[in-house]
Amino acid sequence: MPTKKTPIYLDYAAATPLDPVVLAAMEPYYADYFYNPSAAYAAAQNVRKALETARADAAHWLGAKPSEIIFTAGGTESTNLAIHGVMRKYPKGNVIVSAIEHDAVLMPAQAYDCRIVSVQADGRIDLKDLQAKIDDQTTLVSIGYANNEIGVVQPIREISRLISEIRRKRQQAGNTTPIYFHTDACQAANYLDLHVARLGVDLMSLDGSKIYGPKQTGCLYVRAGTVLEPLISGGHQEFGLRSGTENVAGDIGFAKALGLAQAMRKEESERLQKLQTDFVKRLEASIPHVVINGSKKYRLPNNVHVTIPGQDNERLLFELDEAGVQAAAGSACNASDTEASHVLKALGLSESTARASLRFAMGRGTTSDMISRTMQLLQAAIQEKGVS
Amino acid sequence: MPTKKTPIYLDYAAATPLDPVVLAAMEPYYADYFYNPSAAYAAAQNVRKALETARADAAHWLGAKPSEIIFTAGGTESTNLAIHGVMRKYPKGNVIVSAIEHDAVLMPAQAYDCRIVSVQADGRIDLKDLQAKIDDQTTLVSIGYANNEIGVVQPIREISRLISEIRRKRQQAGNTTPIYFHTDACQAANYLDLHVARLGVDLMSLDGSKIYGPKQTGCLYVRAGTVLEPLISGGHQEFGLRSGTENVAGDIGFAKALGLAQAMRKEESERLQKLQTDFVKRLEASIPHVVINGSKKYRLPNNVHVTIPGQDNERLLFELDEAGVQAAAGSACNASDTEASHVLKALGLSESTARASLRFAMGRGTTSDMISRTMQLLQAAIQEKGVS
Repeated sequence: MPTKKTPIYLDYAAATPLDPVVLAAMEPYYADYFYNPSAAYAAAQNVRKALETARADAAHWLGAKPSEIIFTAGGTESTNLAIHGVMRKYPKGNVIVSAIEHDAVLMPAQAYDCRIVSVQADGRIDLKDLQAKIDDQTTLVSIGYANNEIGVVQPIREISRLISEIRRKRQQAGNTTPIYFHTDACQAANYLDLHVARLGVDLMSLDGSKIYGPKQTGCLYVRAGTVLEPLISGGHQEFGLRSGTENVAGDIGFAKALGLAQAMRKEESERLQKLQTDFVKRLEASIPHVVINGSKKYRLPNNVHVTIPGQDNERLLFELDEAGVQAAAGSACNASDTEASHVLKALGLSESTARASLRFAMGRGTTSDMISRTMQLLQAAIQEKGVS
Repeated sequence: MPTKKTPIYLDYAAATPLDPVVLAAMEPYYADYFYNPSAAYAAAQNVRKALETARADAAHWLGAKPSEIIFTAGGTESTNLAIHGVMRKYPKGNVIVSAIEHDAVLMPAQAYDCRIVSVQADGRIDLKDLQAKIDDQTTLVSIGYANNEIGVVQPIREISRLISEIRRKRQQAGNTTPIYFHTDACQAANYLDLHVARLGVDLMSLDGSKIYGPKQTGCLYVRAGTVLEPLISGGHQEFGLRSGTENVAGDIGFAKALGLAQAMRKEESERLQKLQTDFVKRLEASIPHVVINGSKKYRLPNNVHVTIPGQDNERLLFELDEAGVQAAAGSACNASDTEASHVLKALGLSESTARASLRFAMGRGTTSDMISRTMQLLQAAIQEKGVS
């Protein structure tokens, strides 16, 4: 049997390998310092200290206080805690989300009076539509920082300024209903600024599995003074907002991964942006009528999302996988769905155009050579159409 | 500085060290097979297969179908999913729990019409009181298999027979309200039979961190046909009952830990029962007026819970920790609480008696020598009272 080449992994938006440095930070807490951090003896209290150091480290990168960091079992739990947490406190309120949010935001939001803000053809939200949809009962606005499918980055600062203005007006009018701003930053954390005061967010969701940390780790940033209803109650861990014996190794790994990702984000963004520019140039030069979906300007540096008219993405992905390139049609969560992506539909793509679209999500292991090779294999797969 | 002896760990009910065999099973899934199991390429589908094999392995030990195993982030999430999951479907229903449940059961249950069944002085639930409290609107009964503080084992089969009988009567009377039986088996999994059909349970919570598996792993067994409202929604993972990219390494580790624990449960129970008998004998022989709390007969083999009249458990635990013995006053979650344990109060212990009580929870690393040494150090700590 011929040995296969190591595959070219271009699905870093779906999962990232655990950084060996992160694993090394976690390992002491498996069998040596395995104590329950709530126990009273000194050895357990040292575990508590390590956990709280991790919390302070994570807080540091967000410009937050340690008490504002709630460790969770990942981004989906974080977004659910943010949305149910606020909305269960304000059952008469409404929640506003964009049309291109991840299902982990859309599904919990749709349990309430939920209004959907439309996006422009480039995937950026329509700020006027957002402003029009906010009324006196709106208690939560949840807009993702960067989209998981098309990599489009939203104007978080502009949105938070708009919300601050509404808050000010409510105060003047004597309306005591709060309005909170949550952002799902799971896809943003490798490349963008996460400083919560600069962003002006009240709640922010992060996920370890997207930043070379362990799966099922993450946190929800909760600005001091924001009152949430917990999803999971019991032993009062995480300031009563999320009970259960803490994931000591996992939380420490998450904080380490977050620190590494943020420390290298500028350098890595520059490196990937060059690959991205080159990748897009090659696609546009060699594939007729190709379309790059989503804003080219306001975009994560690792994302290339493309429509190749007349092609079927399932067939292309299969051919690419066979040839050693691992890419995706969109969100991994919906990889087995038969319906076209709600994100692409929101951009105005037809069902058939959506089905001709592919996502390439680059990451730390991606090199220029891999992009060249991917281009060759993609062209070959496109040309095989007639004979397959 | 004199080197300290390795401490004697007697708090296995609070946390267990990760078994090296479990860690070895997890390690390939950190950096090598890190793929998102929902992705379509072959390498990711192999990860899906490994995850589903783990689910089938866990199901095997419960005599369940793989589709009845919902992987969660631990016991507390499992109990919350069971209780909120049922009760949100039946908002007019009521839930019945015992007075000695863990807070992870009591707190979610108390969000609904919740009735508390009393326990006898030996910690076993009062079956007549249970029967009296169940009415036509009762939709959930949640009774822990083995108590986390006093180790008392409940008559799960008797309770399930009682519930079956009620179900039968409801059918005859045309009452279509279901009645489900959930058991929190987090503390039971190292020592007791988990076969769900033999036990007659509809829902069962398990936790990795109590069975030498990874923290923040576990599962909820959900009998086919039991309809639950999910706590966390999004990407539809875990049969739609628990969204979020799966904890591949963690779930595989949990299943491995469960298999190991169940495979060695009889041998380990026998071994620990001997240590327990010896420990209790020595306590009763050497400490005047000592009381062993909870049934001696219906009891986990690793638990020794004792009241030493006239003593203050905080002081004793501090002295023991200094001398190299790590034990607890009760649940680790409440280690920092100022109130006495609700479990001990339910047994009828006074506040001051509860404060004179200690829990020793043995485990795989516990030896006869350690118990002898603990007895010596405990006696020394008791005698120091006058001079401290």
